[in-house]
Amino acid sequence: MISFDYYIPTKILFGEDKLNELATVSLPGKKALIVMSNGGSMKRNGHLDRLISLLKENEVESVVFDKILPNPVKAHVMEGASLAKQEGCDFVIGFGGGSSIDSAKAIAIMAKNPGDYWDYIYGGTGKGKPFGEVLPVVAITTTAGTGTEADPWMVVTKEETMEKIGLGNAQTFPVLSIVDPKLMVSVPPKLTAYQGFDALFHAAEGYIANVANPVSDMYALKSIELVFKYLPTAVNDGTNLEARAHVALANTLSGFVESTSSCISEHSMEHALSAYHSELPHGAGLIMLSVAYFRFFAEKTRERFADMAKATGAKDWNDTDAFVNALIELQRSCGVDDLKMSDYGIQFEDIDELAKNAWHTMGALFDLDPYKLSVEETVSIMRDSFR
Amino acid sequence: MISFDYYIPTKILFGEDKLNELATVSLPGKKALIVMSNGGSMKRNGHLDRLISLLKENEVESVVFDKILPNPVKAHVMEGASLAKQEGCDFVIGFGGGSSIDSAKAIAIMAKNPGDYWDYIYGGTGKGKPFGEVLPVVAITTTAGTGTEADPWMVVTKEETMEKIGLGNAQTFPVLSIVDPKLMVSVPPKLTAYQGFDALFHAAEGYIANVANPVSDMYALKSIELVFKYLPTAVNDGTNLEARAHVALANTLSGFVESTSSCISEHSMEHALSAYHSELPHGAGLIMLSVAYFRFFAEKTRERFADMAKATGAKDWNDTDAFVNALIELQRSCGVDDLKMSDYGIQFEDIDELAKNAWHTMGALFDLDPYKLSVEETVSIMRDSFR
Repeated sequence: MISFDYYIPTKILFGEDKLNELATVSLPGKKALIVMSNGGSMKRNGHLDRLISLLKENEVESVVFDKILPNPVKAHVMEGASLAKQEGCDFVIGFGGGSSIDSAKAIAIMAKNPGDYWDYIYGGTGKGKPFGEVLPVVAITTTAGTGTEADPWMVVTKEETMEKIGLGNAQTFPVLSIVDPKLMVSVPPKLTAYQGFDALFHAAEGYIANVANPVSDMYALKSIELVFKYLPTAVNDGTNLEARAHVALANTLSGFVESTSSCISEHSMEHALSAYHSELPHGAGLIMLSVAYFRFFAEKTRERFADMAKATGAKDWNDTDAFVNALIELQRSCGVDDLKMSDYGIQFEDIDELAKNAWHTMGALFDLDPYKLSVEETVSIMRDSFR
Repeated sequence: MISFDYYIPTKILFGEDKLNELATVSLPGKKALIVMSNGGSMKRNGHLDRLISLLKENEVESVVFDKILPNPVKAHVMEGASLAKQEGCDFVIGFGGGSSIDSAKAIAIMAKNPGDYWDYIYGGTGKGKPFGEVLPVVAITTTAGTGTEADPWMVVTKEETMEKIGLGNAQTFPVLSIVDPKLMVSVPPKLTAYQGFDALFHAAEGYIANVANPVSDMYALKSIELVFKYLPTAVNDGTNLEARAHVALANTLSGFVESTSSCISEHSMEHALSAYHSELPHGAGLIMLSVAYFRFFAEKTRERFADMAKATGAKDWNDTDAFVNALIELQRSCGVDDLKMSDYGIQFEDIDELAKNAWHTMGALFDLDPYKLSVEETVSIMRDSFR
């Protein structure tokens, strides 16, 4: 029986030079807090100046908050929200990768709601309170990874307790997202690969999730097809705009998957890894887990894996291991087949604790798996992923 | 180059018994004008009583306006808007087929804007004024045809001047749509077929339109696939809920196509037919035009037709006429291959005037065709469709 709820209210402007439309499009306020990474590349390459000048053309003032880490932390959410209040900003622009946009969403909540961000988190030590009205968010993506421009979700880490947990509801969809592949040409190869695999796993997890439906399926299979077809070129020749645009599209579609289906326990496991090891990029952590993870589930849900294998272009799509084999090959062609947990300081003996953290913080996602994992099976998949 | 704008802010509840959620879902007001057809079937089968009682459970009052014709007319839009104002309704529910929902959208405009509905129409004798704020619209579909639950468009006829013209903007998306296939089991076979073909043509026209993009393409091909797979069963065994649900999904997807791409000149031509002959169902008019219409364009845009033919399941999808052959076969299996313009009072000599009407009222859609038709070619396609 087909049954689903569809709600993706974000207006998305997608394509080369779409950033220019920021000068004329209707914006949700007159003074923006621009939330961006601490890396400095957006200043060096002139993107920030261009953004501020386009906003000025649209008669919008702006204030910059540029402290966001690759794995964004609660302290910066609280600091950004203070700044937004102090400066009287009436909307928030997330400008950069998923970490900047996710932080913008969290700041949009805390600029209008009392207390601490963790009061509103479900899971872990969060208090699970409902939040009220939020500031409107505009998302301008400069990487193609989290799909956050097309979903309501944000992921932030509480450093003190090593908890990395997602949050979002119908209010936290961006009101406007701009996906301009020209902003992505300077993303370095490794990061392009990590991000592209994140998009792939959003699609693949959402396809095997027990809440998948014909609409999320459509987005997921198209996203998988595009990642397999275009990611190696985007990684190996970053200036190839056709490849960048198609990977960006795959990413936006994987955001649609997040909005209509869900990611599952692979994300819970990865959040544990990068909550403890903040220098581990989320996409890299997923890549490390993915082969053991999908190999485990391929046995449990063969038809879904055959569909996904077909989308990769595999000729032997009907074989149980076709999708996983294609995944391994894609990792090779993107130069990310040699990632090791041990290179990021993760030790084999830590895995029990990491698995427990995954269940403690993001246990709800295990309920959406196509087969209900035990804690022991979780540990076993994570051990199999260790190198 | 990929370039598109995506904006479909409607929340859609899709599935069997989703109507029941009306008792609990957040609604955009406290007093609804229920807009429905003059046919009386919704009263006889108890659907209206159920709707009113679900609204009461949700603490929403309602007033019924049940005069809408299969080809809805401006006079009823104005009358419904007066009633909404007089009764202090703060939102409008379109309950029924496309005609009721389209009328609900038009009433939502006129309940908040001055003057005459035709003041806001672009094309024909319309004055093309912009309209301001509108009442929120909730769409509850009981047929699977126009896709109006998932797009901003409405089509109304001005009887005095024989003009049938579409209207819509970002404000006229329903805020909430409920697509419950159980409400569709009583739709008679012929109407099921007409509506199903309307959905098919929204998808097919949107796929060959020069404004098509990868997102609209995804919706269009899936919609075509589902119509070819499930429409004959839905027509020949109306109680088959699996078929009804899949045709309903095809229809919603074709609404997404209308929201992300556009219908093209086939719709302009059909609007002329049913503007002059209001007893002609829109879907039937499209069926009459479709073979000559798509045969003409198959030569002009072969790749797109091969994709569509593949979606129909045709083995010979690479042949230029594969899609049109599949279309003819689908008409046979749905029992609508014997429709004749002459049965509806259309005469061969009228065709020049009808073609002129199509250009006069909905000329803008000809700009979206994959090949720019001349008036002579328009006449020629319409003549070839005459029987």
